Amino acid sequence: MAGCCAGLAAFLFEYDTPRIVLIRSRKVGLMNRAVQLLILAYVIGWVFVWEKGYQETDSVVSSVTAKAKGVTVTNTSALGFRIWDVADYVIPAQEENSLFVMTNMIITMNQTQGLCPEIPDKTNVCKSDADCVAGSTGTHSSGVATGRCVLFNETVKTCEVAAWCPVEYDARAPEPALLKAAENFTLLVKNNIWYPKFNFSKRNILSNITTTYLKSCIYDAITDPFCPIFRLGNIVANAGHSFQDMAVEGGIMGIQIKWNCNLDRAASLCLPKYSFRRLDTRDVDHNVSPGYNFRFAKYYNDLTGTEHRTLIKAYGIRFDIIVFGKAGKFDIIPTMINIGSGLALLGVATVLCDVIVLYCMKKKYYYREKKYKYVADYDQVCHPLSSSRHLPEGLGSESDQ
Amino acid sequence: MAGCCAGLAAFLFEYDTPRIVLIRSRKVGLMNRAVQLLILAYVIGWVFVWEKGYQETDSVVSSVTAKAKGVTVTNTSALGFRIWDVADYVIPAQEENSLFVMTNMIITMNQTQGLCPEIPDKTNVCKSDADCVAGSTGTHSSGVATGRCVLFNETVKTCEVAAWCPVEYDARAPEPALLKAAENFTLLVKNNIWYPKFNFSKRNILSNITTTYLKSCIYDAITDPFCPIFRLGNIVANAGHSFQDMAVEGGIMGIQIKWNCNLDRAASLCLPKYSFRRLDTRDVDHNVSPGYNFRFAKYYNDLTGTEHRTLIKAYGIRFDIIVFGKAGKFDIIPTMINIGSGLALLGVATVLCDVIVLYCMKKKYYYREKKYKYVADYDQVCHPLSSSRHLPEGLGSESDQ
Amino acid sequence: MAGCCAGLAAFLFEYDTPRIVLIRSRKVGLMNRAVQLLILAYVIGWVFVWEKGYQETDSVVSSVTAKAKGVTVTNTSALGFRIWDVADYVIPAQEENSLFVMTNMIITMNQTQGLCPEIPDKTNVCKSDADCVAGSTGTHSSGVATGRCVLFNETVKTCEVAAWCPVEYDARAPEPALLKAAENFTLLVKNNIWYPKFNFSKRNILSNITTTYLKSCIYDAITDPFCPIFRLGNIVANAGHSFQDMAVEGGIMGIQIKWNCNLDRAASLCLPKYSFRRLDTRDVDHNVSPGYNFRFAKYYNDLTGTEHRTLIKAYGIRFDIIVFGKAGKFDIIPTMINIGSGLALLGVATVLCDVIVLYCMKKKYYYREKKYKYVADYDQVCHPLSSSRHLPEGLGSESDQ
Repeated sequence: MAGCCAGLAAFLFEYDTPRIVLIRSRKVGLMNRAVQLLILAYVIGWVFVWEKGYQETDSVVSSVTAKAKGVTVTNTSALGFRIWDVADYVIPAQEENSLFVMTNMIITMNQTQGLCPEIPDKTNVCKSDADCVAGSTGTHSSGVATGRCVLFNETVKTCEVAAWCPVEYDARAPEPALLKAAENFTLLVKNNIWYPKFNFSKRNILSNITTTYLKSCIYDAITDPFCPIFRLGNIVANAGHSFQDMAVEGGIMGIQIKWNCNLDRAASLCLPKYSFRRLDTRDVDHNVSPGYNFRFAKYYNDLTGTEHRTLIKAYGIRFDIIVFGKAGKFDIIPTMINIGSGLALLGVATVLCDVIVLYCMKKKYYYREKKYKYVADYDQVCHPLSSSRHLPEGLGSESDQ
Repeated sequence: MAGCCAGLAAFLFEYDTPRIVLIRSRKVGLMNRAVQLLILAYVIGWVFVWEKGYQETDSVVSSVTAKAKGVTVTNTSALGFRIWDVADYVIPAQEENSLFVMTNMIITMNQTQGLCPEIPDKTNVCKSDADCVAGSTGTHSSGVATGRCVLFNETVKTCEVAAWCPVEYDARAPEPALLKAAENFTLLVKNNIWYPKFNFSKRNILSNITTTYLKSCIYDAITDPFCPIFRLGNIVANAGHSFQDMAVEGGIMGIQIKWNCNLDRAASLCLPKYSFRRLDTRDVDHNVSPGYNFRFAKYYNDLTGTEHRTLIKAYGIRFDIIVFGKAGKFDIIPTMINIGSGLALLGVATVLCDVIVLYCMKKKYYYREKKYKYVADYDQVCHPLSSSRHLPEGLGSESDQ
Repeated sequence: MAGCCAGLAAFLFEYDTPRIVLIRSRKVGLMNRAVQLLILAYVIGWVFVWEKGYQETDSVVSSVTAKAKGVTVTNTSALGFRIWDVADYVIPAQEENSLFVMTNMIITMNQTQGLCPEIPDKTNVCKSDADCVAGSTGTHSSGVATGRCVLFNETVKTCEVAAWCPVEYDARAPEPALLKAAENFTLLVKNNIWYPKFNFSKRNILSNITTTYLKSCIYDAITDPFCPIFRLGNIVANAGHSFQDMAVEGGIMGIQIKWNCNLDRAASLCLPKYSFRRLDTRDVDHNVSPGYNFRFAKYYNDLTGTEHRTLIKAYGIRFDIIVFGKAGKFDIIPTMINIGSGLALLGVATVLCDVIVLYCMKKKYYYREKKYKYVADYDQVCHPLSSSRHLPEGLGSESDQ
C-alpha cells in the first residue's frame, strides 16, 4: 500500500461509505422519520416556499417626480382677495423626492433693514438700556441687539434690534389654515424603479393606464389602486389624521411606494403598493416646534435702490415620496446554502434519536453494542502486533467485533 | 461504566469516528470522486472565486454635488435678444442629488391678480353665464370661476376666472427648444462615497486627476472614463436618446455611478463606473404629461405696491445622480457558512453513490451486506441477554457481523 | 424484502444510525474535544453572540427635516451695514435631506442684459478683433463673445461679450468669510426612521426630551448626546476641521445619524448615534474648484420694465444629513442556517482528527483496521455467491470482518 501510484489508485478507485446499523424498531423508526419529516417540512415549506430561500435579493434604486395641481382663493384683511396657484404655494418649485404645499402662513410685508423694537417675550422685555446687551442675539431674536431699550407700544418696552423691520410676529399660526382648500389639491407622482443586479426597471404608471384614465382618476386603495394621482386630503386621511388639523401648523406626510417583486414570475406582476404615514411627531408636549414650517422671502428694490422684502413663514405639508422594496430572483447560491444547511440539519434527527435509543430506552446497552466498537489505546494492548487484525479476548470491558 | 468521573473521562478521552466500508470498485470509485470534484468545483469556483462568497458586503452611503456651466443666447419676439447663464436656467440654484437645466419654456409676463377669461378648451367654452359654475375649479383651471361667461376674443366666449391675469397659454411647448444650445453645457459631478461597515471612503475625483486635466476634460467612456465633467448632449446620447427631442418637453436623465469595490484589494482599484439611463416614460400614448416641467414665478412690486409676477412654465432635463454599489471584504462568517454548506453538500456525493451502489448495481445485495448491520427489536430476540455480545444465528433475514 | 408494503414498512420502521468506532486514547480524545470546543466557541461566541447570526436584518427608511437659526450682521463698503437672518442665508429655503448655510459671497449688483468686456484672464485678453471669435463661449465665459476687442480698463483690452453686465469678478472669495458668525448658528434636525420589515418606527427627538430642554440644549457627545440641536461650529470641529477655514470657500459636512437597533430588546434602547464627517475634497492640489459654491440671482424690474438682477456667488456649507443603519430581530431562518453550517463544521473536527489518527500516529495501521472495512469489487471474487454473507479468506490485502 506504499508508493505514489498505489496511493493515487487507492484514492480514485475506492468508494467509502459509512457503515450503518439498521435498527428494526417500530418506536424508534417512526420517531426518526417523524423528526426528519419535520425538518424537511421546515426546509421545503418555510425556507423555500414561504421565505423564498432560493432567491437572491436586490434593493430598489428609484427616481421620483411629483407635481401638484390646484387653485384656491383667500380673502384676508392683510392681503385682500387673492388667488393661489401652483407657482405660489409649492416651494421650492422643484425638488427631487418631495413636494411642499404651503397650507398656512404668517406674512410680514415690506420689511427693510433698520432698527426696531423686538416683539415682547420673556427674554427681551426691558426697563432700561442696562437690560439690553449690545451685540447679543438670543435663540429667538429677529436681529442683533443694539443695547437700547425702546418703546414697543404705549405700555411695553423691549430691546431694540438691528433687523429686517418691522419684526415678524409669529406667536400663533392662523386658525383655520389660510389655504384650507389645499385638501382638494392633487399630486401626480411618477416613479421609475430599477433593480441593478437583475437589470429590471419599471414605472408606476403601468402600461395599461391610458391618457384618458390619467386625466381624471384619483387614487383609491380599492377602486383605483394604480392611479398615480392622489388627493391631498385623502393622503392625510389614509394615514389616520385630519387634514385641517395638520394644515394649521404643517407636518410631513410620507407616501410610501413599496416594490416587492418576484422576478421569477411575469414582469406584469411586479406592481407598486402605496401606503401613507405621518412622519413628524404628533406629541405636542414633547416637541419644541410642532408641525413643519420654514421662512423664505421675496425681495424687491424700490426706486432708490433700497432692498425691501416680504418675509413669509410658510406652514405646510411636505410630502416625502419614499420608495423601497426588494426583488427576488432564483439564484443557485442561496439555494445551495439553504439545501446544505438543511442537509446538515437532518443530522439533528439522527443525533436526537441516537440519544433516545442509546440512553433512554430499556435496551440501550444492546443497541450500544451494535453501534459502537470500542478500541483501546494501542499501548494498553499486551502484544504490540502492528499488523494483527484480531485483538486478544478478555480485556476488561472491551468488546471487539 | 457508571459514575460521574468515569462518564467525564469517557467523554474527554474517547474519540469517536464513523466506521467506513471502503469499496474497491473502479466504476463506483471514479463516479464518487467525479461527483465530489463537481461539488468542490462549484463551491470553490463559483461560490468563492466568482461570487466572492467569503466576503461580507455593505451598501454605499453617498453624497453628491453637481454644478452646471454654460452660456447661451436666444432671440425671440417676446423676450428679444437675451443671454441665459447658470443662474437663469438652473432651478432651483442648489439641490442635493440632482440638477435641473431648463431647456424650453413658456413665459407669461406681467401677471397680476384679477379677472379674465380662461383659455378656450373643451371644458370652459360657454354661451351664457349658466354654463359657468361660480367657485368651481377644473383640473386644468388657472383660477376660480366667477360664474360669468365673457368674451375671450371676437368669436369665442369662455368662463371668467379670478386668477393671475393674463392666464397662461400652454397648449404647446416651443419647437425647437428655446435653449437648444444647452446640449453643449457641461455638468461637474462631485461624489463622495462611504462604506460604514468597513469605514472606507473615496471620492470620484481620483487622486491622479490634476487641476489642469479637470479644467478641460470631458467624460468619455473610452478615452476619459474618470473625468467627472459631462457634456449634457453626450449624457443623453449615451442613453440612446436625442437631446433636441428631449429638450422640447423635458425629461429625467439618470447619471448612475456604480461603486462595486473589492476591499481585499488595493483601495486604488475601487473606481466609479458611470452609466446613463433615461428615467421618465417615453411612451407618449400612455402618459398624461410627457416629459418634465414645472411652474415657477418671479415676483415684482410696482410703485403702487401691487404685486406682479412673471410665470414661467419650465421644461427641462433633470439630471438625477444615482449612486449605488456594494463593497465586499473578507469576513470569517460568510466564509464559514459557505464552507459548512459546502461540506454538507459533499454528503450529497455519498448519498448519490450509495443509491447507485446499493440499488442499481448488479452486486447491490453484496454491498448492502457490507454496509448494513441489521438489528432486530430487542423484544423479538428469544433470549433476553442484556450483556450478550453475540446474537444467536439463524434469525430469518437477520445478518449479524 | 420485495414488495411495496414491505418496502414501506422497512422505510418507516427502521432506524439507521452510523456505526462508530470509539478509540480510547487520551491524546486523540482530548484533541478531538478541543477542536470541537473551538468550533462550538466560534459558532456560539462569535456567530451568535457577537455578530448576532440568529437575527434577520433590515435597512432603515428615513425622513429628515432641518431648520437653522441665527442672526448676524455685516458691514461692508458694497452693502453697508446689513442684517442676515435665516431667510437670507439658507438657500433654497427648504430641502429634503440637507440644508445650505451661506457663509461667504461675491455679490455683483444691478446686472442688466447688455454688452461689456470680459474680466481679463489668459483666454480673453486681446489686442484686436481678430483675437475674439464671435459666438464663442469659453469654459469660464460669462457670456457669448461678440467678436469685438474692447477696453476693459486703461491698460487692458478683452473680448466683448453679450452677458449680464457688469460681468462678475470672482477671482477670490473674501477672506475672512463674510458671515463668519455663522459658526454660532444652530441647526435643529428632526429625523423619523422606519424599519419596514419589522414595522418599527422611531424619532430622534426621544420621548424623554421636554420642550424646556429642547429650547436651550446644544448637542454634545458626552453631556447631551441626544439633543438634536447642533451648533454649526461644533459640527465642523467634531469632524476635525476649522469652521473659519471652511467658511471661506465653503464645503460639505455630513451629519451621520446611525440607527443600529437590536429589536429583540426594548424599543427604548434603539437610539440614534451622531457622527460628523467632511464630505468634500480637502486636497487643494487635486481639485479644480475647492469648497462648495453655486450662483443664484434675485430679479427685479425697473420702471421701464427692464429686468435687473443681483447675481450672488454663494459660498457656504451644505449640511447633508445621512441616515443609515440596520435593525436586527430574531428570525428562525438565519438561526437555522448558522446552526446547520455549525453542525457541518463540527464534521471538520472529525476529519482533522481522522487525518492525525490514521496517518500521523504510530499506531495508524491498527486504527485503520478498526475504522475501515475493505471490500473488493465483486467481480474479483472467485465464487459469484449473490446472497453469501461471508467472503472467502485469503484474498491478498483484503481484510474482512
